[in-house]
Amino acid sequence: MVEAQGTQELPFATVAIIGIGLIGSSIARAVRQEMPDVRLTGYDISAGVRERADVLELVDVLADTPGEAVAEADLVMFCVPVGAMKDAADSIAASLPNRAIVSDVGSAKLAVAQALRRALPDATIIPAHPVAGTENSGPDAGFASLFKGRWCILTPHEGSSKDNIARVTAFWERLGARVDTMDPRHHDLVLAVTSHLPHLIAFTIVGTASDLEGVTQSEVIKYSAGGFRDFTRIAASDPTMWRDIFLNNRDAVLDMLQRFSEDLSMLQRAIRWGDGDTLFDLFTRTRAIRRGIIEQGQDDARPDFGRTHE
Amino acid sequence: MVEAQGTQELPFATVAIIGIGLIGSSIARAVRQEMPDVRLTGYDISAGVRERADVLELVDVLADTPGEAVAEADLVMFCVPVGAMKDAADSIAASLPNRAIVSDVGSAKLAVAQALRRALPDATIIPAHPVAGTENSGPDAGFASLFKGRWCILTPHEGSSKDNIARVTAFWERLGARVDTMDPRHHDLVLAVTSHLPHLIAFTIVGTASDLEGVTQSEVIKYSAGGFRDFTRIAASDPTMWRDIFLNNRDAVLDMLQRFSEDLSMLQRAIRWGDGDTLFDLFTRTRAIRRGIIEQGQDDARPDFGRTHE
Repeated sequence: MVEAQGTQELPFATVAIIGIGLIGSSIARAVRQEMPDVRLTGYDISAGVRERADVLELVDVLADTPGEAVAEADLVMFCVPVGAMKDAADSIAASLPNRAIVSDVGSAKLAVAQALRRALPDATIIPAHPVAGTENSGPDAGFASLFKGRWCILTPHEGSSKDNIARVTAFWERLGARVDTMDPRHHDLVLAVTSHLPHLIAFTIVGTASDLEGVTQSEVIKYSAGGFRDFTRIAASDPTMWRDIFLNNRDAVLDMLQRFSEDLSMLQRAIRWGDGDTLFDLFTRTRAIRRGIIEQGQDDARPDFGRTHE
Repeated sequence: MVEAQGTQELPFATVAIIGIGLIGSSIARAVRQEMPDVRLTGYDISAGVRERADVLELVDVLADTPGEAVAEADLVMFCVPVGAMKDAADSIAASLPNRAIVSDVGSAKLAVAQALRRALPDATIIPAHPVAGTENSGPDAGFASLFKGRWCILTPHEGSSKDNIARVTAFWERLGARVDTMDPRHHDLVLAVTSHLPHLIAFTIVGTASDLEGVTQSEVIKYSAGGFRDFTRIAASDPTMWRDIFLNNRDAVLDMLQRFSEDLSMLQRAIRWGDGDTLFDLFTRTRAIRRGIIEQGQDDARPDFGRTHE
């Protein structure tokens, strides 16, 4: 199969990456590794990020303006916070070639698709969301294997051509991802529970723990191996990115939050009244989901996520 | 230092482990490795666990009764769920030598100390809590390095002799732990926030996610890499152990849960009203705690807990 890959037709000859953070730089690295013949152009609104991208040689052409980055692109990939999509799209509108497909990596698809469509009414837009990442940010944090074995969800408009969907699918598959297609509204509901609510809860509990009068922050840090530290990883994620996700997937997040709060109240009541059976029943059920995640290769099977114990 | 260790005086010549699960079997393995001259005896209420402990050769003498296990012990270590401490202590009361120190590894110290003191009114009791573990259970899940670099908290009674506290401290330090001493009530408050509340929240959200009508369980599993999977690890922990902890540290857990719920309501309101500044401010603050945990060696510094990306 390795020999065959070199002769596979490239889904896109020139790819422009707008926003060169964790995800954008990981795409660049993965494209370099898996499709070395693709011509990569890039732009980031931050001069500091552009400088790092230059030093790291992440793209072939590091543009000084977003328009310059997309001028010869077959695929334009917006890898900016969800709330910055509209401005980013506006900034390339005048330079976008007719043939280009526009895509993105945002975690809230309904709002992003609307923003892109408003800014680029005549463009071919195939929104996407690779469900992958780490708690780190910036061009240095990316790596080529980030998408391997992870799912990438496309949320194309009903009228999108099968050929265009197939090209974006092929692009992500070449980077190692598995690709699903979904209605954007359903995507936003699924991600509200598998990603947005977990982040919101992690941010909250880390905040709660750092604001106690009876327990010091240094105690929280020292004894975090009892479970708390698991939450601190995702609570270290990029603040701008996450603010934008919550503001742009508001209804689904609030719906999931309401359900979570009801369930938490039930457990609170069980603890207060000493109802051990309710606790035991839930704690038994939750083990099955972990097994499913490991069986499907979506998490490390080693205990403690494979943390070192030395 | 390695040569010196062999000549160090052993804090205890004979150690009895009552309950040979993840923690009990890890202590046994660590004692074998770090203090090979210690004589280890063991007992577990489950015949199946005793059989595995025998096959794994975890202790020198696998007893058929708890009384037999402790009859010659200098240290008796209860490694059973918090709710089983009283029965376990009752079962050895008639056989416990006068010279023996009794300790445990329970995660709720006030309730356990009371239970042990009632069952063994004349015994020397130095309760302890090693803040370490994995999501796995049973004698096969243990490993010798589990306590290395982790904290073990002793909660001795005011009247405890310094010499006895020093011996239990030396025991845990020989297993690689760092030892702190704390008032049991304060311990229970600290652990409520660093361990019990995180587990309760993880159990809850995994339950919430598996009970949705609009999102299938298979979707939750597939797209769990967006953050959800981090919560499933601790939600796969032993149900009996955790039921007992919540029932035995009720007041502190309910207090922390109340604070968490208030903070979550504030964020819910910020999302509903589009107050991005409140979200951004919190998300910025929470990054600092993660840094502190990594700087103090309480978590893996590699992104994604060191998970493999291949």
